[in-house]
Amino acid sequence: MPNSLPTLGSGLGLHLELVTSLDSTALLTDMYELTMLQSALADGTASKQCTFEVFSRRLPNERRYGVVAGTARVLEAVKAFRFHEAQLESLSFLDDRTLDFLRNYEFKGDIDGYREGELYFPHSPLLTVRGTFAECVILETVILSIMNADSAVASAAARMVTAADGRPIFEMGSRRTNEQAAVTAARAAYLAGFVSTSNLEAVYRYGIPGTGTAAHAWTLLHVEDDGTPNEKAAFASQINTLGIGTTLLVDTYDISQGVRNAIEVAGPELGAVRIDSGDLGVMTSKVRQELDDLGAHNTRIVVSSDLDEYAIAGLRGNPVDAFGVGTSVVTGSGAPTAGMVYKLVEVEGNPVAKRSRGKNMTGGTKRAVRTHRATGTAVEEIVFPYEHETPKIGQLTSYELTVPLMREGALVQGLPTLEQSREYLAKQLVTLPWEGLALSKDEPVLSTRFMGFE
Amino acid sequence: MPNSLPTLGSGLGLHLELVTSLDSTALLTDMYELTMLQSALADGTASKQCTFEVFSRRLPNERRYGVVAGTARVLEAVKAFRFHEAQLESLSFLDDRTLDFLRNYEFKGDIDGYREGELYFPHSPLLTVRGTFAECVILETVILSIMNADSAVASAAARMVTAADGRPIFEMGSRRTNEQAAVTAARAAYLAGFVSTSNLEAVYRYGIPGTGTAAHAWTLLHVEDDGTPNEKAAFASQINTLGIGTTLLVDTYDISQGVRNAIEVAGPELGAVRIDSGDLGVMTSKVRQELDDLGAHNTRIVVSSDLDEYAIAGLRGNPVDAFGVGTSVVTGSGAPTAGMVYKLVEVEGNPVAKRSRGKNMTGGTKRAVRTHRATGTAVEEIVFPYEHETPKIGQLTSYELTVPLMREGALVQGLPTLEQSREYLAKQLVTLPWEGLALSKDEPVLSTRFMGFE
Repeated sequence: MPNSLPTLGSGLGLHLELVTSLDSTALLTDMYELTMLQSALADGTASKQCTFEVFSRRLPNERRYGVVAGTARVLEAVKAFRFHEAQLESLSFLDDRTLDFLRNYEFKGDIDGYREGELYFPHSPLLTVRGTFAECVILETVILSIMNADSAVASAAARMVTAADGRPIFEMGSRRTNEQAAVTAARAAYLAGFVSTSNLEAVYRYGIPGTGTAAHAWTLLHVEDDGTPNEKAAFASQINTLGIGTTLLVDTYDISQGVRNAIEVAGPELGAVRIDSGDLGVMTSKVRQELDDLGAHNTRIVVSSDLDEYAIAGLRGNPVDAFGVGTSVVTGSGAPTAGMVYKLVEVEGNPVAKRSRGKNMTGGTKRAVRTHRATGTAVEEIVFPYEHETPKIGQLTSYELTVPLMREGALVQGLPTLEQSREYLAKQLVTLPWEGLALSKDEPVLSTRFMGFE
Repeated sequence: MPNSLPTLGSGLGLHLELVTSLDSTALLTDMYELTMLQSALADGTASKQCTFEVFSRRLPNERRYGVVAGTARVLEAVKAFRFHEAQLESLSFLDDRTLDFLRNYEFKGDIDGYREGELYFPHSPLLTVRGTFAECVILETVILSIMNADSAVASAAARMVTAADGRPIFEMGSRRTNEQAAVTAARAAYLAGFVSTSNLEAVYRYGIPGTGTAAHAWTLLHVEDDGTPNEKAAFASQINTLGIGTTLLVDTYDISQGVRNAIEVAGPELGAVRIDSGDLGVMTSKVRQELDDLGAHNTRIVVSSDLDEYAIAGLRGNPVDAFGVGTSVVTGSGAPTAGMVYKLVEVEGNPVAKRSRGKNMTGGTKRAVRTHRATGTAVEEIVFPYEHETPKIGQLTSYELTVPLMREGALVQGLPTLEQSREYLAKQLVTLPWEGLALSKDEPVLSTRFMGFE
């Protein structure tokens, strides 16, 4: 822990002391990676030069594209993949040679991959990790955990952003996922174009803008001594501390009365009202009419009741000014994992590949380009052997998808910030053929062509 | 961080220093909780005595029961809900009075709730948090994050354990969820009756048994200098380090040849073979026949290809000795969140309740019992005001579901260990009417009756 953060003393419960993944990612690992390591150190294969590749065989739920997310977090996790002595002591199933290897472990290989915020399709070579078998194999789990979780959220969130058609979306799903997954989900949603998060750790850690005003509990708290509700008292108090630009939650009791109470207390310059229940199609039109009748023409309407990309699209013709999205974005809207795998594809220069039914793959270290028409519209992805020249495809311009991320264990200079990756994705989405932005199920909108493999 | 764990130096990347949720859960919080706090401190409602309740309105995917999980983690999180100065500095949207409150914050209220490992149904009062509005309201997000994530995994995992009908299930889904969610998912799956996990941090943190031997990469690594596969070399090396009792993965190339290679190298006393692809119904019978023909009558068959509770049930008549389950368990098998909410139900002795359409609830602090026939079979849940006497229901025995967990901020003595909660759930499942263990969609198998409310 950095010295600037005081520790909280010994009263916080024994279990926190046993969380070893706080400043080391080394145990965020499947046991079989270390048993393989032990065998490899014993039989001499540990030092073979290998390439592992992250890719997905399909897009979940017949979506048209996926969004790469988590790449920057992967690079941090690789750098933090170092073993404490206390962690090594817990690995009693390993022999001394293997424990010594882990004690001195530090990844010294190369990583290339798609940029964070890049679009991807089945069999896109998303991350290419090169080094000895020993140093690469043990990174599998933490790399996949991060990329599968972050890409699942970003891929769902990007569809919501498209459906919202320029109207802002706030991320507010922390309560519907693991407490740490909530923080990284907020980051992935922001990458995909959400404008803010409710999660304060994400605000702190990643600098994402925060939003939030009040819950139903706030209104329910304001009752007379005999239990009679007093919604106006709740609204008045909130305005007193947060100002007239705040958002009042108007559906705790009767929504029409809620709107009248809000404008009576705040006046017509109230920032916004929020609706969190009921038939939003009907309610938003009704509330807009009421606000206009009360002269509150600039008071915005925020909605937030179990929204997903389809519900957002369904409200396209309604007077909604902003969306709050929770459960569906943090759970990937029906696809909570991106289904990416980390596969050995090359050993000492030889391509290798599993031949199991339904799990075919192409061996060899790869690079990829995406071709574009002169209009800027993307045409296809071309995947080719890493050491080959970039292929020329007729009159199409082609664009390098594979970029260097780490060299001999050190981060490449000038890696993008979260803000830059967010802008990058927004630009990439514009290059998709228009049908790629449809919410309906279909084939991937771009195909991936392999060139130059046997 | 405890002194026994050396820090890893300053070379681990700037971002890790910005992770403030490592020994404090205070920022795992939605911003609106702190803006409500600020308003409550300003208008004097902060000190009102309140009750918040965790419950769910429905069971996801029309399941028959849910499993409460995460309770012990919630109690730890409440104790670790303390603010660092660096965290407070990030909360620039708050006034000094609110920051002072947070600086000195320590939960001093009472918590009651269902035991971890208890079964639950819609509207079961799962957790009851009592104290001032100020001290209770800000715990909402972290409590729900933990209970929603852990209960989602445990509820799915319990169905898989039932479907496996006594055969062991290994948890191996770390790569398909956020890297920290993977650790707590392993815990929840173990609670629900899985026998082990692949996740080494879960082994370390929670003492869960670990399992793992080798991946396809291990077989692919063993190629001749010209790239020719050498599966036998991979098997021989693994047996050399892990012993004859190990599990060999036989489906990298041709599965029949893989089985023959495995027994040729290991002899008929090989511990197990694992199949990770293909039609498991056909393959397991074929592999069993092959093993028996080779005299390997005691060699077990482990399967692990995209299994969920339905696939497990479908293999009930097949020669499978153990299951490895990944994606489906860590993502809650179609229900990645339990959908629990944290609602204000009482203010200064008065019941309060939201009246929004589709989100009705019953106000007031509650307790619950479950009634049982003399045979031990559960009949229904009865929810009643906290201060009422336990109702007597005919000849049925009734069992207290609500137990004290925290008093004046201190943990109640004798809270169960993870092992005890695991045994508790196993016993509770036996009390369900038999149709409650069916995988098919239907109503909750027990109903929840409210008694004594207005």
